[in-house]
Amino acid sequence: MTTMTLQERVARFYFDYADTLNRGKYAEWPDFFNPDECDYRIVSRENHDLGLPAPLMGCYTHGMVKDRVAMLIDEALTYRHMYFRHYITNVRVDECPDGGIDAGANLLVMQCDQEGSASTYMVGRYEDKLSLREDRLKLCKRLVIIDSFSIDTALAVPL
Amino acid sequence: MTTMTLQERVARFYFDYADTLNRGKYAEWPDFFNPDECDYRIVSRENHDLGLPAPLMGCYTHGMVKDRVAMLIDEALTYRHMYFRHYITNVRVDECPDGGIDAGANLLVMQCDQEGSASTYMVGRYEDKLSLREDRLKLCKRLVIIDSFSIDTALAVPL
Amino acid sequence: MTTMTLQERVARFYFDYADTLNRGKYAEWPDFFNPDECDYRIVSRENHDLGLPAPLMGCYTHGMVKDRVAMLIDEALTYRHMYFRHYITNVRVDECPDGGIDAGANLLVMQCDQEGSASTYMVGRYEDKLSLREDRLKLCKRLVIIDSFSIDTALAVPL
Repeated sequence: MTTMTLQERVARFYFDYADTLNRGKYAEWPDFFNPDECDYRIVSRENHDLGLPAPLMGCYTHGMVKDRVAMLIDEALTYRHMYFRHYITNVRVDECPDGGIDAGANLLVMQCDQEGSASTYMVGRYEDKLSLREDRLKLCKRLVIIDSFSIDTALAVPL
Repeated sequence: MTTMTLQERVARFYFDYADTLNRGKYAEWPDFFNPDECDYRIVSRENHDLGLPAPLMGCYTHGMVKDRVAMLIDEALTYRHMYFRHYITNVRVDECPDGGIDAGANLLVMQCDQEGSASTYMVGRYEDKLSLREDRLKLCKRLVIIDSFSIDTALAVPL
Repeated sequence: MTTMTLQERVARFYFDYADTLNRGKYAEWPDFFNPDECDYRIVSRENHDLGLPAPLMGCYTHGMVKDRVAMLIDEALTYRHMYFRHYITNVRVDECPDGGIDAGANLLVMQCDQEGSASTYMVGRYEDKLSLREDRLKLCKRLVIIDSFSIDTALAVPL
């Protein structure tokens, strides 16, 4: 088997994450996060650029990340069903002196409704800290900075 | 010259495929397929998720793939001319124990009309089987799963 | 630290370029170009395909590249503020026998207005020549070929 570069491994981690969400496998989503160090926030680009830290949504522990998708798994939440597709581009990876990994990417999410009509759901980017333990990558911190904060379907599913 | 990883080779193969279509070089499109084992289908995501196999379009031999573009090469087909651009992201590559390669990617096709106005043409993904023979990659099977199945220009050109 | 492949290095160079523009750091934009050999042009795909060389915009020296963004740095130019995000995909890299690097990519630029509404700003591709000197990549020639030439905001910022 071919060995992958670190760049390829992080990109693959991002693509597996996107695929899990696109298939609606929300129960697997918390597995992408580090259980011991876990922070997931969505902020608008406007606030982020102004240094205003209040997130549109925030999960500050692994338990909160699990709670985030609990209602999606049980289908307790009612919302208009849409198909989503996450296009992850511009993946940038930097190794830190402390052994951690800083990474980021641009994110474009397209949605299609039941009639098959496509529209733009989300324009934004990821800014992440990852750990590599026992040869597995995990997210310690994921910041989703969204340019398109006027979202009509109100963050029903994770990004 | 630098050697490429398998991940890079498959990605490059995808990008060359997209470039060939974007330049309208339809006569070269069949060369991306394995002449001995060849299957090309387009299915809607809705049908695919429900396990319904009927494709919107299917080519089950290399000859059918050649036929698919014959009318485009001869300019026998009349349709409104559009510029297409294939954005291929989230490329994932897995080597199989039997020596084959499983791969996939997300696909976003943008179209621009003669007046230079852009719109979304296609949202979907590829699910492929590739072979590597005499150091050349070929598609044995390409499944194009499209989220946006309400296509106004009716699959005039390959995806 | 992990070594990067040439493919990864060029991709990273492109992503750093996009990030610099997306953050509005226009003063850093000329640093991506080779000061001794510098050519930056934007052409419509229609003209490019017909072999018509007249660009929508052209900078033929490093000084002209600096001039291009001077008014943006000083905020002398008044225009409606938009957020831009460059999605760079389909990165292809070829080493030339003379030591230069031919490379290209597809480019999708999304814009978001002050109200957070997203729309497509630009569909196109890059066709570049790069040099690698003292271990740093620089653009000797960047041709931006745009499919969507009916741009309402008139090329206010670089691509």
